[in-house]
Amino acid sequence: MLQSTEPGAGARLGPVVRWFRGRSPRPPAPTITPRSESVAVARVELADLAPEPAVYLGRLGYVTLVLFENLGRAVMAAPTPEAKSGLTRAAGGIGDAHEAVVAELRRLGHDPMAAMEPYRSELDDFQRRTQGADWHEILVTCYLTTGFLLDFSLGLAGGLRADLGDRVSRIIAETDAGEQILVELLRAAVDANPRLASRLAMWGRRLVGDTMLVARESLEIDGVMPGEDRIEPVFTELVAEHTRRMDALGLTA
Amino acid sequence: MLQSTEPGAGARLGPVVRWFRGRSPRPPAPTITPRSESVAVARVELADLAPEPAVYLGRLGYVTLVLFENLGRAVMAAPTPEAKSGLTRAAGGIGDAHEAVVAELRRLGHDPMAAMEPYRSELDDFQRRTQGADWHEILVTCYLTTGFLLDFSLGLAGGLRADLGDRVSRIIAETDAGEQILVELLRAAVDANPRLASRLAMWGRRLVGDTMLVARESLEIDGVMPGEDRIEPVFTELVAEHTRRMDALGLTA
Repeated sequence: MLQSTEPGAGARLGPVVRWFRGRSPRPPAPTITPRSESVAVARVELADLAPEPAVYLGRLGYVTLVLFENLGRAVMAAPTPEAKSGLTRAAGGIGDAHEAVVAELRRLGHDPMAAMEPYRSELDDFQRRTQGADWHEILVTCYLTTGFLLDFSLGLAGGLRADLGDRVSRIIAETDAGEQILVELLRAAVDANPRLASRLAMWGRRLVGDTMLVARESLEIDGVMPGEDRIEPVFTELVAEHTRRMDALGLTA
Repeated sequence: MLQSTEPGAGARLGPVVRWFRGRSPRPPAPTITPRSESVAVARVELADLAPEPAVYLGRLGYVTLVLFENLGRAVMAAPTPEAKSGLTRAAGGIGDAHEAVVAELRRLGHDPMAAMEPYRSELDDFQRRTQGADWHEILVTCYLTTGFLLDFSLGLAGGLRADLGDRVSRIIAETDAGEQILVELLRAAVDANPRLASRLAMWGRRLVGDTMLVARESLEIDGVMPGEDRIEPVFTELVAEHTRRMDALGLTA
């Protein structure tokens, strides 16, 4: 169902319809809960699924590269200097996170590039599948995949050694400003062109399917997947966050 | 002559030939002089050509956006995680510079976007003309245009009000680490494939022509260009820096 693309899907845009009827007074922009608060439950559930630090950091290092590239693509496709400038800031935030993860790998005595290599082809493939056909789809990709994958990583960070887990949590928390920039650009776009809403809602459903898959696969340790009973609650929580993210755009998850 | 593309140009690759004969012991990597020292002369010459702060910062704001986008393109085209990761760091540095310039515009009470807008179409056009056909050309574009335009901006910063000039000079100086990353990637590429040298040397000549033009145009104030006698020494200095940058790759300027 998450990957549903049935044509009727766009018709269930309750919140958007509410927004665009009776345009003034405009409802206040939904605020985004900081990632660190919102994933508290997933954090507890995910904590004992955490892999070795090198595995965790290697994957997160490559994930942040992919997310940075997506934001770079969004900067290039941006139609205005405002959008370019805001997205450059968002990309810079993810770039800083990448750099900090690489520094953590070095601190543990690992070669950062060797640590990232095992996740490269899977994540490059994920990136190709989720790249989006135009600027708006690229923005939705940046917003939703960054949100989901960093929530997931923040959850897993609870299972790392305390000092490392704290540093990684801070690295991830500092990307929140970028999320706010994406929300604002997307809300403005949907506001200016309500017909975008149904296309982007569909794109969002497609994305969450691919993103969940790539997150689930990363829980496999030595070829063994944890039981469904342990995975299920985590993803219930992460999908709830995804729905909240779609709500913030006025889109149906 | 700077835009020369005569086929014989690749033959004059003295330093490269020296490098690739008798490969060991490999000569030490040429070090890059920090921008702040190397443009001391241009700085004096350029200081009294400096425009109004809003004009200076508006243009520099859009220049850094263009340079960031070019680095983003380089990240995307990068063939290895090492290269992607290094370039993400370089792009992050330029992104930080962009953000800092936007903050200076705000501090002076200007709308950053309105301040950048007048330079957009000219600089977008510059970006299209200089984008490069493949990863190596993109890297050379990033290296040479960033180097030239930031040297030029650093020179002009000497004519700003002292406190603003100092802050801007620091913003620009902090991009030096990114330049070093580009040099290393390009040296490794030319080293692995000496035939690249002549193509990239030609591309470099083409780029410096376009880059000088865009820098010169920015010296026009209210439709009036300063006399050639004032411009000439500045560009002599900046071209010398460009030549030094090409030398660092083992390429003939």
